[in-house]
Amino acid sequence: MNQMTQAKKGIITEEVKVCAQAEEVDAAIISQRVLEGSVIVTYNKRHKSVKPLAIGRGLSTKINANVGTSKDCLNLDEELEKVKVAVEAGADAIMDLSTDGNLGGIRKAIVDTAIVPVGTVPIYQAMIETVQKKGKPIVEMTVDDLFQAIQQHGEDGVDFITVHCGVTRESVDRIKKEGRLMDVVSRGGAFMIGWMIFNDRENPLYENFDRLLEIAKSFDMVLSLGDGLRPGCLADATDRGQIQELITLGELTQRAWEQDVQVMIEGPGHVPIDQIETNVLLEKRLCHGAPFYVLGPLVTDIAAGYDHITGAIGGAIAATAGADFLCYVTPSEHLALPDVDDVREGIIASRIAAHAADIAKGVRGAAEWDREMAIARKKLDWEEQAKLSIDEPKARRVHTRRSSSGDACSMCGSYCAMELLEDAFKVTLPRC
Amino acid sequence: MNQMTQAKKGIITEEVKVCAQAEEVDAAIISQRVLEGSVIVTYNKRHKSVKPLAIGRGLSTKINANVGTSKDCLNLDEELEKVKVAVEAGADAIMDLSTDGNLGGIRKAIVDTAIVPVGTVPIYQAMIETVQKKGKPIVEMTVDDLFQAIQQHGEDGVDFITVHCGVTRESVDRIKKEGRLMDVVSRGGAFMIGWMIFNDRENPLYENFDRLLEIAKSFDMVLSLGDGLRPGCLADATDRGQIQELITLGELTQRAWEQDVQVMIEGPGHVPIDQIETNVLLEKRLCHGAPFYVLGPLVTDIAAGYDHITGAIGGAIAATAGADFLCYVTPSEHLALPDVDDVREGIIASRIAAHAADIAKGVRGAAEWDREMAIARKKLDWEEQAKLSIDEPKARRVHTRRSSSGDACSMCGSYCAMELLEDAFKVTLPRC
Repeated sequence: MNQMTQAKKGIITEEVKVCAQAEEVDAAIISQRVLEGSVIVTYNKRHKSVKPLAIGRGLSTKINANVGTSKDCLNLDEELEKVKVAVEAGADAIMDLSTDGNLGGIRKAIVDTAIVPVGTVPIYQAMIETVQKKGKPIVEMTVDDLFQAIQQHGEDGVDFITVHCGVTRESVDRIKKEGRLMDVVSRGGAFMIGWMIFNDRENPLYENFDRLLEIAKSFDMVLSLGDGLRPGCLADATDRGQIQELITLGELTQRAWEQDVQVMIEGPGHVPIDQIETNVLLEKRLCHGAPFYVLGPLVTDIAAGYDHITGAIGGAIAATAGADFLCYVTPSEHLALPDVDDVREGIIASRIAAHAADIAKGVRGAAEWDREMAIARKKLDWEEQAKLSIDEPKARRVHTRRSSSGDACSMCGSYCAMELLEDAFKVTLPRC
Repeated sequence: MNQMTQAKKGIITEEVKVCAQAEEVDAAIISQRVLEGSVIVTYNKRHKSVKPLAIGRGLSTKINANVGTSKDCLNLDEELEKVKVAVEAGADAIMDLSTDGNLGGIRKAIVDTAIVPVGTVPIYQAMIETVQKKGKPIVEMTVDDLFQAIQQHGEDGVDFITVHCGVTRESVDRIKKEGRLMDVVSRGGAFMIGWMIFNDRENPLYENFDRLLEIAKSFDMVLSLGDGLRPGCLADATDRGQIQELITLGELTQRAWEQDVQVMIEGPGHVPIDQIETNVLLEKRLCHGAPFYVLGPLVTDIAAGYDHITGAIGGAIAATAGADFLCYVTPSEHLALPDVDDVREGIIASRIAAHAADIAKGVRGAAEWDREMAIARKKLDWEEQAKLSIDEPKARRVHTRRSSSGDACSMCGSYCAMELLEDAFKVTLPRC
């Protein structure tokens, strides 16, 4: 019996209890929100090593790291290393986006390695194996190929899957009519549209949504309703095609909830800073409070090499406005497959964004962490400051790179404001 | 005759014309805003190498880089190298915050090196030379020492000076009454408070504000009214002492304008993400539209080693809300004096923040840059993408680190959405 079914029966599951403890939030509140759909609890019991994770309303903002092979970089060991580094750096979830090699084997290795929930995009496997195993073009994937891949991912213990159900004839048509600078940049979305055009058919995930729900329900696998039409540049943001897809995702969300299938909604992407809040509010309204999972958003297109920073800016604003789950962006985005260092940088940047938002959201413990750091700074207690830093080894490295002759750091030395004030107040307190 | 005087007479100065051309904004509009005080034009004619810079309403968001020696890192060559690197990376202005060595000689070298406006904090010199030259404690600086330093900075060609005029008995008293986790973290603010307490006197810059205006006027040196009471941690943000100081700065702004002295207002600092907009709107209202110069703001205290990112998040939000000038923060902030690489990282992060905000502000040319990048991406034109990147060498480095076998990058390889869609649309266009 899955999380939503039990929540509807008033049963607080073990998984909800684990999440409640981690979040320091009352289990009954989380259970109530699972029932409403505003919180999801990811947990495929076939993923042996995993701890359940709650994402959504009132909870801390979560972070996802994408890993996976590509044709140009096919090295399973490196991808498994990325999983470990990402989790150590604070990733709450991992998505395997592999597109080359033995996809099934890679996925199983990643699921086995990850102690956090794993997400996937089953259409990659269905289409790529059409080429790899049948020697046919990807557009000759059959509908059964796709559903078999989804079934397989559930059996392998995948906790959530991206399904581009809202890429329909209607939404694609709106994109074409309005016109875009960059058309479609979602790989899964592009696969799907290519298939739909070639076969002159409607999106099979949309047409056969009940079949999808049945599989998802059997594994309690969360559906991450993908934004195949997300904008690929600022100029395309918040256009009619994107919002049309979101409307469809809202309808599908309610159909999923009727079948006790948990859902989150994927969001952009590339968004000007002044449109981010609108995107979050629209998602929350159109999808009746389903958790929102955003990629970035990136607030400019021109910062290749620094998109972990553009993503941190957008992510902090989105999460403050109510986004629940941030997909990291690495410094390699738009340029190359990330390496292990990129993964670490991307996770830290996303965590900063999430934490800054959690302070504004009033998430339990968030502001307290900063408060403790402030007290350590006031005391010039470097040991405590390092321990409280988001990346302790880096904080130590930078601090000791230029050693200081006194208690203060090498920026101000003997003119440290902390020290000056301490002296001033000490000498003259009787006169105050 | 200085900028504001001439604006009041309806004369459009050469400096305004230069700025108008750089900004692609009508010179008459800039001149009108100089008159109102919502735009400043920094230009001390004794700074031979400098181009005038306009900062304020309707103009692109500007970036400042702090450099300067400290007791633990006294190396003029390195500081001059930082100036060059910062300007190459896109800094619009430099502040010399040196606190050790021959302060006058260092300042002159920095002014000579910088082709952008230079700002300073004259109280540093006045207090430190009290120790260096008179062998007395810093609190024995005389009022004349302070004004002589200010005069000297004007003569040396400094374009703008930070003066902590709002650190008054009234505002300091409010800090004491309310209590703070971190008291005062501004070095100049701490100097001033130490002096005021020790000497049991009011702030001499506040008491003798007309004397300050006279000097500023004679060099057309912009007063950057410093926020000596800015919060040093999130918990202290937007408290009564900070706002009391801002009220005083608003009053002094109007007194400066009456004397045709240009003013900008310095702002925090450490601010929770949901208080940033309020801080900007308050400054704009209390100081009647004077340009706002913020340090960060940093949206969390716990990311030492990554404060260029926390500052970029806060800076982007502040500038979107109307802040005009961002002081960069480097990855070394709170840990050590930055090195040359830190300076470059800090500038790039600030430029991303400023640019993201400029798109939202509707600054001329901002969105167009992103549009050109989107077109280059759509074409998979890597040469053009590199040229359009905010840091061209880095974009090239990351892209070629993992070479790709095709036109696409090594992230998606042959499954590049751009290529897929192009193929799909090409094959089937007749059927659409």
